Amino acid sequence: MQLNVAEKLIQDHLVSGEMKTGETIGLNIDQTLTQDATGTLVMLELEAMEIDKVSTEVSAQYVDHNLIQGDYRNPDDHNFLRSASNKFGIHYSQPGNGVSHPVHMQEFAKPGKTLLGSDSHTCANGAMGMLAMGAGGIDVTLAMTGEPYYVDMPKVMGVELTGRLPEWVSAKDVILEMLRRHSVKGGVGRIIEYYGDGLDDLSAMDRHVIANMGAELGATASVFPSDEAVKKFLKSQDREDEWYELKADEGAEYDEYDQINLSELEPLIAKPTSPDNVVPVSEVAGDEIYQSYIGSSANPGYHDFAIASEIVKGSVIAPGTSFDINPTSRQMLQHLVENGHIANFLSAGARLHQAGCNGCIGMGQAPATGHNSLRTTPRNFPGRSGTVEDSVFLCSPETAAASALAGEITDPRTLDMDYPEIPDPAPKIDHFLMEAPPEDNSGIELDKGPNITAIPEFDAIQDSFDLPVLLKVGDNLSTDEILAGGSRVLPFRSNIHEISEFTFERVDETYTDDAKELKEKGGHIVVGGYNYAQGSSREHAALAPRYLGLRVVLVKDYARIHRQNLINFGILPLTFVNDDEYKLIEQGAVLEFRNTHDNIRSDETFEVEIKGTGQTVEVRHDLNDRHKEILLAGGIINWVKEKQK
Amino acid sequence: MQLNVAEKLIQDHLVSGEMKTGETIGLNIDQTLTQDATGTLVMLELEAMEIDKVSTEVSAQYVDHNLIQGDYRNPDDHNFLRSASNKFGIHYSQPGNGVSHPVHMQEFAKPGKTLLGSDSHTCANGAMGMLAMGAGGIDVTLAMTGEPYYVDMPKVMGVELTGRLPEWVSAKDVILEMLRRHSVKGGVGRIIEYYGDGLDDLSAMDRHVIANMGAELGATASVFPSDEAVKKFLKSQDREDEWYELKADEGAEYDEYDQINLSELEPLIAKPTSPDNVVPVSEVAGDEIYQSYIGSSANPGYHDFAIASEIVKGSVIAPGTSFDINPTSRQMLQHLVENGHIANFLSAGARLHQAGCNGCIGMGQAPATGHNSLRTTPRNFPGRSGTVEDSVFLCSPETAAASALAGEITDPRTLDMDYPEIPDPAPKIDHFLMEAPPEDNSGIELDKGPNITAIPEFDAIQDSFDLPVLLKVGDNLSTDEILAGGSRVLPFRSNIHEISEFTFERVDETYTDDAKELKEKGGHIVVGGYNYAQGSSREHAALAPRYLGLRVVLVKDYARIHRQNLINFGILPLTFVNDDEYKLIEQGAVLEFRNTHDNIRSDETFEVEIKGTGQTVEVRHDLNDRHKEILLAGGIINWVKEKQK
Repeated sequence: MQLNVAEKLIQDHLVSGEMKTGETIGLNIDQTLTQDATGTLVMLELEAMEIDKVSTEVSAQYVDHNLIQGDYRNPDDHNFLRSASNKFGIHYSQPGNGVSHPVHMQEFAKPGKTLLGSDSHTCANGAMGMLAMGAGGIDVTLAMTGEPYYVDMPKVMGVELTGRLPEWVSAKDVILEMLRRHSVKGGVGRIIEYYGDGLDDLSAMDRHVIANMGAELGATASVFPSDEAVKKFLKSQDREDEWYELKADEGAEYDEYDQINLSELEPLIAKPTSPDNVVPVSEVAGDEIYQSYIGSSANPGYHDFAIASEIVKGSVIAPGTSFDINPTSRQMLQHLVENGHIANFLSAGARLHQAGCNGCIGMGQAPATGHNSLRTTPRNFPGRSGTVEDSVFLCSPETAAASALAGEITDPRTLDMDYPEIPDPAPKIDHFLMEAPPEDNSGIELDKGPNITAIPEFDAIQDSFDLPVLLKVGDNLSTDEILAGGSRVLPFRSNIHEISEFTFERVDETYTDDAKELKEKGGHIVVGGYNYAQGSSREHAALAPRYLGLRVVLVKDYARIHRQNLINFGILPLTFVNDDEYKLIEQGAVLEFRNTHDNIRSDETFEVEIKGTGQTVEVRHDLNDRHKEILLAGGIINWVKEKQK
Repeated sequence: MQLNVAEKLIQDHLVSGEMKTGETIGLNIDQTLTQDATGTLVMLELEAMEIDKVSTEVSAQYVDHNLIQGDYRNPDDHNFLRSASNKFGIHYSQPGNGVSHPVHMQEFAKPGKTLLGSDSHTCANGAMGMLAMGAGGIDVTLAMTGEPYYVDMPKVMGVELTGRLPEWVSAKDVILEMLRRHSVKGGVGRIIEYYGDGLDDLSAMDRHVIANMGAELGATASVFPSDEAVKKFLKSQDREDEWYELKADEGAEYDEYDQINLSELEPLIAKPTSPDNVVPVSEVAGDEIYQSYIGSSANPGYHDFAIASEIVKGSVIAPGTSFDINPTSRQMLQHLVENGHIANFLSAGARLHQAGCNGCIGMGQAPATGHNSLRTTPRNFPGRSGTVEDSVFLCSPETAAASALAGEITDPRTLDMDYPEIPDPAPKIDHFLMEAPPEDNSGIELDKGPNITAIPEFDAIQDSFDLPVLLKVGDNLSTDEILAGGSRVLPFRSNIHEISEFTFERVDETYTDDAKELKEKGGHIVVGGYNYAQGSSREHAALAPRYLGLRVVLVKDYARIHRQNLINFGILPLTFVNDDEYKLIEQGAVLEFRNTHDNIRSDETFEVEIKGTGQTVEVRHDLNDRHKEILLAGGIINWVKEKQK
């Protein structure tokens, strides 16, 4: 059978299941990537699982998100991550070394490998002929311990690229065209595989731009072949020997097809407030801007910055414009300095920021109220910039630079200049801010600042127990209502005791106090309606209530990711067999559970009595075998610990 | 009579008073400097005073403090400051252009001129043969309207510099030696004037380092002659024609004398937690460090960065060390880029930050808990770094760079290398991020984001009124207790309505609600003990309670600056003639004021009756004639408005 690249990558790593659309498959993971926002919990999980060293070929911990050190919390996290990386056998990328995705590509990306990362844009490394996927933190933790990653086999959409990009049109316009056609839901349940002659014109970093924003299409992954462009990139990193060719078999087929003729593309722009709100730049040209922003993993390459520098070279930006240059790696910044591009930017009046994610994830560079911001970043959802009433447009570096000069949105084709040629920089590779773990990790202690505490130990669910329903909620409760995100709460992400204080605060002010009292007596239950815990995949929304004694959730149905998180932290996720019985349970009622272990092992529905009423409700769990094991162990940390023995 | 430089500067600008130590003198102000943290209120004051254009020779508004744009507030402030600068005839220095003090020196500093700035390190420009002083915001506002600046004639301390600095010892070590000798109080009530042959060895930027940290000595100003070094600096800025010689007369005398033989100095370091906790570097050499930080107005010059770059060139910093490079101006950053120094830093593993004040004022780069941070900044008071339990050392760039390489505090003389020679950079001057105000300001509107509101109009005090004592406090109340600083409150610094919600919150939770109710009925009174409103000079601590209806404060005595702020905002500042009578007034008592206008005009004590008790208390105000005028006008804003007519 002829296989496409995606199928080859999956087949090579398949440890369970069949390659049939929709079937759950288990994949062996070669490499992992964590960043600092998600990484501290991953490290605490490794500690709680009593792992000695990770089992992956390469695991790398990047510090790129929380670079603004307003107080001790972020620098303490950095030191903690460094010590944990040394201890667990993980490569540690120091603050200043750059954004995980391009740095991982420089340092570790390898054709034919799988990469799982606790960051939604992990998919960017699909540019290198890899199967690269974003996942929740504990999924990545498990992969680091050698567990497979489970996912439903996606469809593979083949996108044939033909022709050549015209001058002033670049990779960002290709992915914006994909978003224009397919919307932010178009990639859901799909791997997007690019092929065709048009690839010859796209460097590995150009492909990174396209693969990166596969996340905005909702795709499971984006895949490119490993060809001469990948070889050239590896050569630039002194790693040519790690290249091998990986292409679709002649005659391989795809579940779905699309085609883009690159020659016909023009500069595109995503208007506020969604990455798929795409129009030609010419349609909004002339709108005044306050900010032009170059950077992020959605345009991280040397060429992306150098082309912008050549456009502004010898000119000056419009007065009052904030022209923000956010380098994506130290290596690239060095190349830009040495080839005169940073000098060009500064002479034009740019602001040069430290290498990192920065404004892309709302860490600085927020735009002024009601003023337009042009960005080469991947997302323009409302408020992501940090400014609630923001007005963010997504575009190519060419469009951003041209617009900075004019002080208004400008189609770069209208500039009175030739399209600049950008020669490749002379290679200059060092690894000074990328610390390899020591061979011998004995005696390495975790460096925990006062805000970093170990994950508490959790016991397994009892067989027979009576517990009160501390909280009853309605439909569509979001994880933000269970445990909010944002700058008030998330600084405590490495401190379960502290962060649990915010649990359910928007729903019930007395929840945390009551839960703490009940914890001594065995815990409590939460009852809910439809679509329970929709929204963010935040694991703390399960971990924090578990810390406060939540043992069972009983609802009409769940948002998928939160249900998995409940299982991961040993909370029994039940649903009503008859949704009408939701009405029978009052807040404060006590539910009687009997033979719970057998009920978990069985796939049958079972009955729970409402104490003192003579009434029962019928419930079920729909757990698979792996889930049953995890629950009976008291959650995934205990489960891994038992397996290690 | 032979005059020293300080006396010449004062004589040239004296508009009232006599040059006798302790006498109040009025000085004409040629130039002003505001930064963004203090500047927004200055601009709102100019608006409230209905000023058309400022009357100074040069006024410049810098954006260097609040560069971290976490949400809309800071960028909205930037846009507001830009529009206000254009409207009021002020030069506007955009974010990215650098720190006010070195940029002002590059752009505007001129021998023989006075400079008043709403930043305590304004004194740095004393390096240029100027009388440069820091002051409160409204003092600077007044100077912008053409009013003199009033100060008590300081003593002049002459410090003779002899000899030449040894290799590895630089300007920072000179001012650290001054702090070692004289402590953080040693400069209070003094202008420090440097003279002698040792000056020949110190460039204008070296002198900036010394003058800057005159603020840490508590000095009113630091003064240097205008000589060949100043001429050379002006030449480097294409402003040689603005130079003239300004030296002390032969035989001029000083009120006090000191002498430093530069040849005898060694590398010094200020240990936590005070700038005067100075010891030789060798005494603490070997202590492990987490961070080495280059930047701030206390070491802002090209040479300061270039020497650090030459020290780390070709080497790599110790693993896990955060080597933070904070450029102080865009111009200097350009020079560093063009001469290979930024490349040196990056190759050594440094983090390069945007040009600005940054970590020096706790805006990023906070150190990890309990880990040592070495900084070339001017202050190491506890928590200033942003980390409460910090451990900050102050030192020269030579010491900081040597220590970054070793990962521990290192005397740079122990490095195995020759002291690097740093040639001056080729001049490269542009003014792209410094926007000159337009000639014609008609039609320019202030660009106010939602968090920026005009200062409300305040009426003058009534002649006859009965008002309740809403709050009675004890001794040593601080301005932090009246209105806190910090990141929770200060973001509302340009929004009097919002910031007033925090007034007295630590002392009395019901104050603001009660005050609002009483405001309708004429307002209220606060009674206090000794040393009322000590601490920060924050003007909001007077402005916010005035907004809520505070009309009279009656205490045993005042912290000096707050008393001035009360007068500035039209609040009558009274003291008890007999401190014992403090006991007579209960919180809630109503005080009866009669013939208040005459009482203000008179210098006599007067009586106030406690309603319904038959008792009176005797009070006085100690106002000078100018203060009386201001109070009767309802505060300084009204007073200036009347004068404009």
